[in-house]
Amino acid sequence: MISNTTAKFIKSLQLKKYRKKEQKFLVEGEKSVLEVIQSRFKVTMIMGTEDFIFRNRSLLTALEVIPTTSAKLQALGTFKTNDSALAVVEIQPEAKLSIPTNEFILALDGVNDPGNLGTIIRIADWYGFKNIIASRETADFYNPKVISSSKGSFTRIGLHYCDLLDTLKDLHIPIYGTFMDGENVHGISFKKNGVLVMGNEANGISKEVETLVSQKITIPKFGEAESLNVAMATAVICDNIRRPSI
Amino acid sequence: MISNTTAKFIKSLQLKKYRKKEQKFLVEGEKSVLEVIQSRFKVTMIMGTEDFIFRNRSLLTALEVIPTTSAKLQALGTFKTNDSALAVVEIQPEAKLSIPTNEFILALDGVNDPGNLGTIIRIADWYGFKNIIASRETADFYNPKVISSSKGSFTRIGLHYCDLLDTLKDLHIPIYGTFMDGENVHGISFKKNGVLVMGNEANGISKEVETLVSQKITIPKFGEAESLNVAMATAVICDNIRRPSI
Repeated sequence: MISNTTAKFIKSLQLKKYRKKEQKFLVEGEKSVLEVIQSRFKVTMIMGTEDFIFRNRSLLTALEVIPTTSAKLQALGTFKTNDSALAVVEIQPEAKLSIPTNEFILALDGVNDPGNLGTIIRIADWYGFKNIIASRETADFYNPKVISSSKGSFTRIGLHYCDLLDTLKDLHIPIYGTFMDGENVHGISFKKNGVLVMGNEANGISKEVETLVSQKITIPKFGEAESLNVAMATAVICDNIRRPSI
Repeated sequence: MISNTTAKFIKSLQLKKYRKKEQKFLVEGEKSVLEVIQSRFKVTMIMGTEDFIFRNRSLLTALEVIPTTSAKLQALGTFKTNDSALAVVEIQPEAKLSIPTNEFILALDGVNDPGNLGTIIRIADWYGFKNIIASRETADFYNPKVISSSKGSFTRIGLHYCDLLDTLKDLHIPIYGTFMDGENVHGISFKKNGVLVMGNEANGISKEVETLVSQKITIPKFGEAESLNVAMATAVICDNIRRPSI
């Protein structure tokens, strides 16, 4: 049974204000819940359907799982349909990041949309970028939509909010940023280390951060679309960074 | 004023059944509405806020626009917020496609999610792929979510539903498809013409279509994510197809 107080507490975690106050966040859906219980995160509560509990009993042995229904999972969480599970997980205290200067990192300058942020986290995880730094205007890492669209990659990727301008100023590695008038990404030999800055959906990279970019790049267009979405563009550029140089 | 009958008619177009019956579809939001009135599509009705009408009066001279409110636009359409416009547009009769064999085309084998389909249409439009063929299990081109996520590219890209197996059988050009065990896309010299097949979100390319694929390809992974979303993967492969061969 889930008491009214618990239900209210769980629902409150959909909002950043309460996530911050409680230092907890929601993880929804079978795949993500299974990933988070096997990750560095500490899970404080799991609710699951009987089917979910039966299917995954070997993974759940040491955990207390509250049996519930799909309807209840949907009432408590953000998914339209959830026939498996929901977990309440502790937010990890932000460790002071010393940015590794021998690898590539991603920097997000105000990516607003939680779906885009989650997708970018998944792309970073595919292409082996372990660290993301982000301006404080960037969407909240613990937003349920970020968590779900990262498809479990939130368990492996560190995202560090910071004053992007100050942080980038102190780095002495190449800083790549996407602009309409940059150099064709197909012609660029990327260094082994660097920062790839991706900007806000509507406004791109801010004027201040632009002054720190050492190499402006652009994805060449062969048709008529006005733009590529920021997550698409991130995938394409990460692929170009990782391809062996000629 | 919008009568109850008209309101009911407009709302019905959110469902495929009624789009098919009426041969009409919805276009929502300022950018998409402005694109569609300047496109090959025939617009039969536009509703717009007074601000929208004033801002775009030069583009709207020959058109009758019914003044309305944001609240009404939101009640009639699918957008959570719409402070500009909504149009009712005629579905174009499907012309028999003779597939051009001197260029690259995209083939979708059961892409289910309307958001993914819309994004793929936008990617095709960016990378200059003019034609998409799709199995009948693929999401409906005229779904409001497809239209909105294509960001206007639906006006420029032709999508042709067909029996994918039969259609591909008759083509005598290279057929590329994405598989977990394909050849690294970074090492492939793509021909000037061909078909790129992208599969269903959960199941990938179907067994039958797989038998027709002449070159299996894969996007190399450098991290831990289990997969890339189908729209991301399409963007990355299109970028590889368009990059100048070495």
